[in-house]
Amino acid sequence: MSGNHWIECVPNFSEGRDPDVIERIRRAVVSAAGVRLLDQSADVDHHRSVFTFVGLPTAVSEAVLRAAEVAVQAIDLRVHRGAHPRMGALDVAPFIPLDDSTKKLCVDVALRTGELLWDRLGVPVYLYGDAARIDERRQLEEIRRGQFEGLRARLPEDASQRPDIGGPTLHETAGATAVGVRKFLIAYNIVLDTPDVAVAKQIARQVRESSGGLRAVKALGLDLASRGLTQVSMNLTDFEVTPPHIAFERAQQEAGRLGVEAIESEIVGLIPRRALELAKGQDLLIRSFHPSRILENKLAEVECDVGTRE
Amino acid sequence: MSGNHWIECVPNFSEGRDPDVIERIRRAVVSAAGVRLLDQSADVDHHRSVFTFVGLPTAVSEAVLRAAEVAVQAIDLRVHRGAHPRMGALDVAPFIPLDDSTKKLCVDVALRTGELLWDRLGVPVYLYGDAARIDERRQLEEIRRGQFEGLRARLPEDASQRPDIGGPTLHETAGATAVGVRKFLIAYNIVLDTPDVAVAKQIARQVRESSGGLRAVKALGLDLASRGLTQVSMNLTDFEVTPPHIAFERAQQEAGRLGVEAIESEIVGLIPRRALELAKGQDLLIRSFHPSRILENKLAEVECDVGTRE
Repeated sequence: MSGNHWIECVPNFSEGRDPDVIERIRRAVVSAAGVRLLDQSADVDHHRSVFTFVGLPTAVSEAVLRAAEVAVQAIDLRVHRGAHPRMGALDVAPFIPLDDSTKKLCVDVALRTGELLWDRLGVPVYLYGDAARIDERRQLEEIRRGQFEGLRARLPEDASQRPDIGGPTLHETAGATAVGVRKFLIAYNIVLDTPDVAVAKQIARQVRESSGGLRAVKALGLDLASRGLTQVSMNLTDFEVTPPHIAFERAQQEAGRLGVEAIESEIVGLIPRRALELAKGQDLLIRSFHPSRILENKLAEVECDVGTRE
Repeated sequence: MSGNHWIECVPNFSEGRDPDVIERIRRAVVSAAGVRLLDQSADVDHHRSVFTFVGLPTAVSEAVLRAAEVAVQAIDLRVHRGAHPRMGALDVAPFIPLDDSTKKLCVDVALRTGELLWDRLGVPVYLYGDAARIDERRQLEEIRRGQFEGLRARLPEDASQRPDIGGPTLHETAGATAVGVRKFLIAYNIVLDTPDVAVAKQIARQVRESSGGLRAVKALGLDLASRGLTQVSMNLTDFEVTPPHIAFERAQQEAGRLGVEAIESEIVGLIPRRALELAKGQDLLIRSFHPSRILENKLAEVECDVGTRE
C-alpha cells in the first residue's frame, strides 16, 4: 500500500433521503478513472450521505469534483433540514493520507481541489485541518459554526468569516465547502432508547474532549426523528488515544446515570482492524460486525482487484 | 396478557424519508389514549415507515385512524417512488391477535376501521387476511398487484378490482388501504454486498414459497440505492415452520452460488423470543441484537408501565 501513493477521500453530501440523487453522486464518483469506492452510506435523519474512496491524488480529486457537480445541481441548502450540522451541498471533503509519506500530497490536492470547486462550480471553500491557512480554521466545527444560515447572514460583511478560496458570499443554493486534510478518523454513533434530544446532548457533553470528556473525541447529541430515538454522534480523531469501546463505555455510563440505555452503535464508513482488536471482543452493539467494515479488508480487496485487472 | 384483550397493529405508511412527516404520524398514534407504541422504523430506500403498537381494540383503531389522517394529508402517491410495493399513503393496516381469544375482536375492529377510513378520509379499503370477504384477497400481494398506478389505471372499469369498502376509484393522492387480520409475522431483511438487483430478485425467488422455496416465506429482491447495495426483503409468516436462521441460511447458500454475500440482516419491528431461541446462538448478522427488539420484553415493559400508572 505504502508504495503506490494512494490517498483516501471521504466527502459528505447534504442529501440523505433521495436515493436517486445519492445514486447520481455515486455514479459521478466511480466515473473517475482509477478510483475505488470502498463504502457509501446515507442517513435520513442526518439528511447526509458519506462516500469513502481511494486512488491516486488526481483521480480522487476528479472524483470529488464530479460528485460535487451533481450535488450543486441537485441540492438546495435553503430548504435542507437535517439533524447534522452542514454549510454546503458538498459539505466537507477531507483528504486522508494512508501513510505518512502522502501527507504533503494530500495538502497539495486539497488546495487544488478547492480552487477547482470555486473555478468550475462557483462554490467558495474553507480550508481546514492540515490544509488550513488560518489557525482558527484547523477545526471543522469552528468553520461550520452557525451553519449555512449563519454564514449567509454574516457574509460578506464579517471579514473574519470570509472563505479561503472564492466568495466573499456563499453559493446561493450550494453554500460553501470545507476542504481539508486530516488523519483517519472513526465516525461512530451510539443510538439511545429515548426520544429526548436533551439527554443525547447531555451525554455528548460528558463524552467529548472540548467539555472535559475523553481525549480525541468530538460528540454531538442528535435527533433520530424517523426512529423516535436519539443519538450521540462521535468522531474519534485518534483511536489509539480513545478507541471505540472506551467511548462506548463512557456513553453507556452517562446514559445509565440519566436512566436511558445505548441500544445500538454504528460505524459510518470503515474502521481499522486495530480499533476492533483493542475492544478485545467486548460487544459494542455495532449494527453490522461483518468483516467488510474493516478498512484493511477493503483495501486488500481493492488491491487484488487492481492486481488482476490493471 | 391473555386476559386483557389487547391486540397489536402494525400500520405501514408510504413515507420513509421526511422525519417531520414521520414524527407527525408518531404523534398521531400516541395521541390516542390507551395505546402503547412498541417500535417504529423507517427506510429511505423502501420509502416506507412501520409502527408497532398495542392496546384495546377501540384505542388501536383510533390510533391508526388518526395516523391515517396525517398520512392522507402529507403523502402524495402520484409522486411517491420507493423500492417497496405500495398502493396507499397508509398502505396496509394489519390487526394482529396476541392470543387466540382475540382473533374475532381483530376481525371486528378491522371492518370498523375500514369503514371509518372511507367515511372520514375517503380512502377506499381492501380487506385481506382473516378479514377478507373475497377469497382471492386473503393474500396482500394479490390485492396490491400493479400497485397504486396499476389499480388507478384499472379502476373503476375492472369490477374484479373494486375495493371492498368505498371506491370505486382510488383516493386521488392517498390511493387505497389494505386492512386485515393476520398472524404475527417477522419482517426480516437480508442485505447483499451487490448493487445488482437482479441477483437479489433471483435469491428471493429461490427462497420464497410461491416459487418452490421455503414454506411460510414471502420474499422480494429490492434495490437499496442509498447504500449501493440490494436486499432480500422477507416476511416469515409462521416462524415455527421457517424460523429466521433457516431463511438466512438458504439466502446465504443461494447468494454464494451467485458469487455474492449476505453482509447484514435486519428485523423490522419486533421478533418473538422463541424465534431467536430456535437459532441457538447462530449469528444472523442482525443489525441490533439488543433485547429491546424482543416482543415479550417490550410487552413486559408496557405492562409494568400500565401497572404503575393506571
